[in-house]
Amino acid sequence: MGSVAPEALLPLDPETFAAESREVVDFLDGYYRNVERYPVRSDVEPGRLRALLPKAAPKNGEPMDAILEDVQRHIVPGLTHWQSPNFFAYYPGNASTAGFAGEMLSAGLNVVPFTWAASPAATELEGIVVDWMAKLVGLPERFLFSGGGGGVLHGSTCEAVVCTLAAARDRALSRLDGHEGILRLVVYASDQSHSTFQKGARIVGIPPSNFRVIPTSVASGYGLTGDGVRDAVEADIASGLVPLYLCATVGTTGLGAVDSVRDLGEVARCYRMWLHVDAAYGGSALICPEFKDCFDGIEFADSVSMNPHKWFLTNMDCCCLWVASPAALTSALSSNPEYLNNVTEKSATEVVDYKDWQMALSRPFRAMKLWVVLRRYGAVGMRAYIRRHVDMARWFEQQLEGDERFEVVVPRRFSLVTFRLRPRHKGDDAAEALSRKVLMAINSSGRAFMTHFIVDNKFVIRMAVGGAMTEMRHVRDAWELVQEKTREVGIPLGVTKKHAL
Amino acid sequence: MGSVAPEALLPLDPETFAAESREVVDFLDGYYRNVERYPVRSDVEPGRLRALLPKAAPKNGEPMDAILEDVQRHIVPGLTHWQSPNFFAYYPGNASTAGFAGEMLSAGLNVVPFTWAASPAATELEGIVVDWMAKLVGLPERFLFSGGGGGVLHGSTCEAVVCTLAAARDRALSRLDGHEGILRLVVYASDQSHSTFQKGARIVGIPPSNFRVIPTSVASGYGLTGDGVRDAVEADIASGLVPLYLCATVGTTGLGAVDSVRDLGEVARCYRMWLHVDAAYGGSALICPEFKDCFDGIEFADSVSMNPHKWFLTNMDCCCLWVASPAALTSALSSNPEYLNNVTEKSATEVVDYKDWQMALSRPFRAMKLWVVLRRYGAVGMRAYIRRHVDMARWFEQQLEGDERFEVVVPRRFSLVTFRLRPRHKGDDAAEALSRKVLMAINSSGRAFMTHFIVDNKFVIRMAVGGAMTEMRHVRDAWELVQEKTREVGIPLGVTKKHAL
Repeated sequence: MGSVAPEALLPLDPETFAAESREVVDFLDGYYRNVERYPVRSDVEPGRLRALLPKAAPKNGEPMDAILEDVQRHIVPGLTHWQSPNFFAYYPGNASTAGFAGEMLSAGLNVVPFTWAASPAATELEGIVVDWMAKLVGLPERFLFSGGGGGVLHGSTCEAVVCTLAAARDRALSRLDGHEGILRLVVYASDQSHSTFQKGARIVGIPPSNFRVIPTSVASGYGLTGDGVRDAVEADIASGLVPLYLCATVGTTGLGAVDSVRDLGEVARCYRMWLHVDAAYGGSALICPEFKDCFDGIEFADSVSMNPHKWFLTNMDCCCLWVASPAALTSALSSNPEYLNNVTEKSATEVVDYKDWQMALSRPFRAMKLWVVLRRYGAVGMRAYIRRHVDMARWFEQQLEGDERFEVVVPRRFSLVTFRLRPRHKGDDAAEALSRKVLMAINSSGRAFMTHFIVDNKFVIRMAVGGAMTEMRHVRDAWELVQEKTREVGIPLGVTKKHAL
Repeated sequence: MGSVAPEALLPLDPETFAAESREVVDFLDGYYRNVERYPVRSDVEPGRLRALLPKAAPKNGEPMDAILEDVQRHIVPGLTHWQSPNFFAYYPGNASTAGFAGEMLSAGLNVVPFTWAASPAATELEGIVVDWMAKLVGLPERFLFSGGGGGVLHGSTCEAVVCTLAAARDRALSRLDGHEGILRLVVYASDQSHSTFQKGARIVGIPPSNFRVIPTSVASGYGLTGDGVRDAVEADIASGLVPLYLCATVGTTGLGAVDSVRDLGEVARCYRMWLHVDAAYGGSALICPEFKDCFDGIEFADSVSMNPHKWFLTNMDCCCLWVASPAALTSALSSNPEYLNNVTEKSATEVVDYKDWQMALSRPFRAMKLWVVLRRYGAVGMRAYIRRHVDMARWFEQQLEGDERFEVVVPRRFSLVTFRLRPRHKGDDAAEALSRKVLMAINSSGRAFMTHFIVDNKFVIRMAVGGAMTEMRHVRDAWELVQEKTREVGIPLGVTKKHAL
């Protein structure tokens, strides 16, 4: 296949489609076989790719193999490999054979289901699959379509948060006297909540000074409790402000902390606030009965979200948002331009038009992806998958606990382990500098990638287990690597090993 | 491959990956071979799929072939086939071999480039490819990274609009005295602008009563001109309001109308408003020199957007947003939580962190998709592709003009033809009813799918040419179909054929 003659451009000729798609499958097959060998975090200099690629699009088309060669030569070395089994940074971003198959189907069919009529089965599959997920994670009936609630697939938690903030805002404004009320609305989160809440509140026009960050502490494992919120709310009400929205998190980004949903739910109900439960990461674990207590009190929530694209084998991007009152969402987000009306002989029936459940009009067929994952692996398979990671993280935590050089900062809840070098004396600043040095050495080695967090002035290394290809041997290697780099910064093996295996 | 034993779940085992991905490629190959034969618009009853699928996720995993069988049996009949060569509804939503290959690479590598460090090459490729596109559509240097501006890939125009509205709002608020200023900000659009502007303005907290819809008329082909805006702005200023944001469209959704960018740019500059140019559909045509005049005055814009996922062979979803001042965007949208900071030995260098150019934190590697499209087809191939559709639409328009039963409502600019049955007498209401009836008959036939619009009380049928598989024979068939259904509603062939070919 040489360069493409313009008159010959048949972009969906089935033969070319199949041949070139197979080339890409082979490329990715090779990538997965080799990904373990690449440095996990790319170490390229800024600007490398711009220096390598031309300044303008090519005049003439080029064959697929030439393009794939460039991907291998120019792009792969500049990637941080999220699918490496040694990727323990941030939170996992799972790919899988089933997630990929679903993405291929979605991208290949390429329907745009903004309204039911624009592709009925795509809309209905979404309703079905969010109901399936709701049952799996243990949401009460009120978040199912059959219970008067319902779900939608967004691209990110941030999108879900902005939509629920807009819904809460408009619901509150309808009770207040006019749009001026927006100046009095207050949003509450903890010092551990995801930054998207503050950003989202700002996007929907809440005054930045009306965003409250409630401190958490080690006593509650950095989970938010009701008391702190109640005090802040009372103070705001006393100043004439109106409590609007409270965010609870099941598995915070920094430390994997879990807020008390019941506690916060009671406060939210008491003050008529919208309660959103962000289970972006932790939600995946909630398919296992042993974690169900994290959703205790979930019936108080107005909305709940979790990201199958993190730890649930669903390739980017996919976020489930469930709401107890779809009307609250759609009354903030619906629009009915004439060009979308369905002219048909049939009488109008009650259908879901997902354009009114999200910000954008256009939307991909994400339901296919999550549906293929659930079909291919089943509930039993997914639970085993989650538990394998939890077990591996537990093992890693035990190694740290058995080595006096290290300290586990917050007891592990799911598959995130947070640790640092143990200070030898009270207030030892050296511990922070050494922890930082160890993390840099780990990442520079290319053999693993971890990230960090800072809490109570402690520099914390985050080991987030959850890669689709991560096996026990990779976690053992990571532990070896941590020990090796700790020795290299000048701290020899500890004498006491409390939990030697 | 039977049901998946949980202990055997290896979600990215390369062998399984390759085998099952090939199954999906074969499935899609078959789909493309058959798609022409399916009714374009699905005619299923609401609730069909829910009745067919189980109420909960399966307990055990199932083999891929069983899943694909269900897709064929249960889902395909419920799809409206956006890739059918006879899909002329809404605007096109192009798939292509290259777009699909790019999506596969993006989904397969599955990196999450929220910051540069989280995958340097993904961030850099995005910067490169938006610069390539900017040059292709003829944007001035100020929208390129080299000119102090820059671009980003969003999922939709709506997202781009919300981000630019937030940027404009915060820029304006910094000039006004505090957040109360939000109550005085006004957004201007035309009665032809996409509904996303009104929805977006509401999302970012602009009072709904401060959204101005400026009427357009047949005299300007329903394009917005400066005069109407100027009058509205002056009236608002006189009432103590503050003009914030003006939207210009190159290729409106209903009629494909083109606003005068220069005219609106001058008004925007005069009143210090943010000018956004929405070229979601029309932007693709601007790679051809013969359409470049549509961007006359584009140097006045603060931001410009276009959707490669419409008519540019890039599978869902992909929207280019360019801004003249990245700082205006990032100052409204940046957040810097500790867990994203890059701990490294290297000194900090100026890099782009795309999380600050969008609402969400997480994001897919969309740049890969657009880059593969541009590499595979080249500028010459893409121009030929666009022109082929424009030629087909011109032919269709000529047939209408040559048949006295029809009226072209707005002269065609790109590849959208808008028409209706010609009223026999002044104010003939029957023409509307008949046009509506003809459209319903066309769509019920399953042989083509078109949608409608209403302007000046005229019911307009929209024939949007632009499918990746659409060839001249499909457009001829559509014209046959229109004539056939027109005869069936009782209007025989016209006597005078002005442009008979």
